[in-house]
Amino acid sequence: MPIPKHVGIIPDGNRRWAQSKGMTKEKGYDNGLDPGLEAYRICRDSGVKEVTFYGFTTDNTKRPSCQTEAFTKACINAANMLIDEGAALLVIGNTKSPMFPKELLPYTNRSEAKEGQIKANLLVNYGWHWDLNTLADAQNVNKNNIQNYIQSFDISRLDLIIRWGGRRRLSGFLPVQSIYADFYVVDDYWPDFNSTHMADAFNWYKTQDVTLGG
Amino acid sequence: MPIPKHVGIIPDGNRRWAQSKGMTKEKGYDNGLDPGLEAYRICRDSGVKEVTFYGFTTDNTKRPSCQTEAFTKACINAANMLIDEGAALLVIGNTKSPMFPKELLPYTNRSEAKEGQIKANLLVNYGWHWDLNTLADAQNVNKNNIQNYIQSFDISRLDLIIRWGGRRRLSGFLPVQSIYADFYVVDDYWPDFNSTHMADAFNWYKTQDVTLGG
Repeated sequence: MPIPKHVGIIPDGNRRWAQSKGMTKEKGYDNGLDPGLEAYRICRDSGVKEVTFYGFTTDNTKRPSCQTEAFTKACINAANMLIDEGAALLVIGNTKSPMFPKELLPYTNRSEAKEGQIKANLLVNYGWHWDLNTLADAQNVNKNNIQNYIQSFDISRLDLIIRWGGRRRLSGFLPVQSIYADFYVVDDYWPDFNSTHMADAFNWYKTQDVTLGG
Repeated sequence: MPIPKHVGIIPDGNRRWAQSKGMTKEKGYDNGLDPGLEAYRICRDSGVKEVTFYGFTTDNTKRPSCQTEAFTKACINAANMLIDEGAALLVIGNTKSPMFPKELLPYTNRSEAKEGQIKANLLVNYGWHWDLNTLADAQNVNKNNIQNYIQSFDISRLDLIIRWGGRRRLSGFLPVQSIYADFYVVDDYWPDFNSTHMADAFNWYKTQDVTLGG
């Protein structure tokens, strides 16, 4: 297979990384920012057209406030870094909840890409319930294209999902777009990101047949 | 973690197994029947409460007719074997399409379990589009429980999904129920099923933390 068009990134293991360094859990998130920008650049330079980052979900907001504050701040910084880079950024999540940071409201409409840049989506206070809810509200749904009626309609089908931190699950990540995605797991924690992780994932993807269930 | 309550089985690799034995692809499906019954029994005897088998999806029906006929026949036989065993069987899929075998219509309402038996779900002509479509039709949806409005509402959240045949993807398997599931891949083809595959998957599951995104 060629290079994936759309890559999903689940940057897990920040808290375990912090603990392994003798720090409290919430200290791990800041160390996930540079890896995020590097992952975006590797995708862009490899010919990937769209990258989606798992920021945080509505489930995650049940954690202690020192953690929710830390990952919210990291998402704000991540969005600004992607904008500075020139990505066509879309922040997507439930803006009607107090857990959605006001600073990110301007990015809930996709920004324009600078030359040579690609689409980047950042899930912020995203929930799969929230995503599918608009389907229940829609009128005259064309049932061959129900993905057009969900909140995340502007995010395309995922080809490859890479998860750091060893867990082998989606944890609420874009269920409709993940339906046919190939899933690659990196055991290292996200703050220990290394460009070889991406190269290994892309090389593995090349060995997969993509049939879309056919 | 304890034993999973609900286990999903993706029995892939039948066609590759047949080819590796010098047979034509469609010959592989019959050899997947005994493994299915054994997997059901292992789950039941381990304390699992519900097992869901990926039979075939609407995507799969695009394959050559000698294959669709072979996997349809295998699904009919699988359903009868599970009924004979005493499982509380539910066959679930789009019954309004000609690809749904009439022989399985009686099982689209869940049968009653014989003593000591558990729930077994078999996806037959299942499609994720078809599954989510009823959400678009539903009136007065309680948005905290949207899974109650999908076609597969009677299938509970999956804890563990085991896929044979080495592929690392869901291929359309119950997207809503798979959202938090841990995903275990067996490289062997499904007809080479061995009880140690199940034991390995259960032992691996025990080492996972289950947070449901929290």
